[in-house]
Amino acid sequence: MQAYSHILLAVDFSNNTDAVFERALTMRKALNARLSLVHIVEFVQFDFSSELTMPQELELDQELLELADKRLQQLGEKYGIADSERIVSQGNTKREILRIAEEQKVDLIVIGSHGREGIQLLLGSTANAILHGAPCDVLAVRIRN
Amino acid sequence: MQAYSHILLAVDFSNNTDAVFERALTMRKALNARLSLVHIVEFVQFDFSSELTMPQELELDQELLELADKRLQQLGEKYGIADSERIVSQGNTKREILRIAEEQKVDLIVIGSHGREGIQLLLGSTANAILHGAPCDVLAVRIRN
Repeated sequence: MQAYSHILLAVDFSNNTDAVFERALTMRKALNARLSLVHIVEFVQFDFSSELTMPQELELDQELLELADKRLQQLGEKYGIADSERIVSQGNTKREILRIAEEQKVDLIVIGSHGREGIQLLLGSTANAILHGAPCDVLAVRIRN
Repeated sequence: MQAYSHILLAVDFSNNTDAVFERALTMRKALNARLSLVHIVEFVQFDFSSELTMPQELELDQELLELADKRLQQLGEKYGIADSERIVSQGNTKREILRIAEEQKVDLIVIGSHGREGIQLLLGSTANAILHGAPCDVLAVRIRN
């Protein structure tokens, strides 16, 4: 039994991305696995009562996608991850990550977790949302606040 | 950076224990890590309106602890895990696992996860509870239902 062969790291560009990256890279090396990066751009919420906002919305979505692509590229270069292993997609974060994990036959999703409690737990963090419904194993890397 | 040096596998004796064990053993080997097992026996809930139940309660707790000890020993022998790496404790599952993880300087908790959604998510599964508040990383191993 191989530990994991394809790791998908969900990147959210928070300040603590480095710690999660280092963990994923260490796992890639130790397990001799493939590592892909994914970042999801959520759709911008606009006030649909005004039809004047529509073109702005489309423009902003496009700008956000390009920005995300650029930032993911920078991280990929910093950590030595090939262009072909970087995925930027748009939609609901949880749904898109799970869809891509399934499509790419990922067997481990790595995600940062703040380990927050109380109201955050009820509202459901991304790590929590991913954990429930994931088609594969999930490694939650503790981010020190 | 070492991937993980001390893995704590939370065992719940469900039918799918084997899959979680195999994952933890593969990780132990691949990462050259120490692997400990922990099982928590929750306190038996009795009707405290009747004081007659008190001695029964203590007896049942003791029996449950002994049974858990025996089952964990069997699993340890099956998977080649030393006596010294088996911990049976009593109390609230989440609290005890987190306490032991901290005490034993564990850097990865491995736990089975059913990936249930909806009401189960709101009620909070053990994997979910562990994820929130863990002093270290958490690997949720997907159990096929």
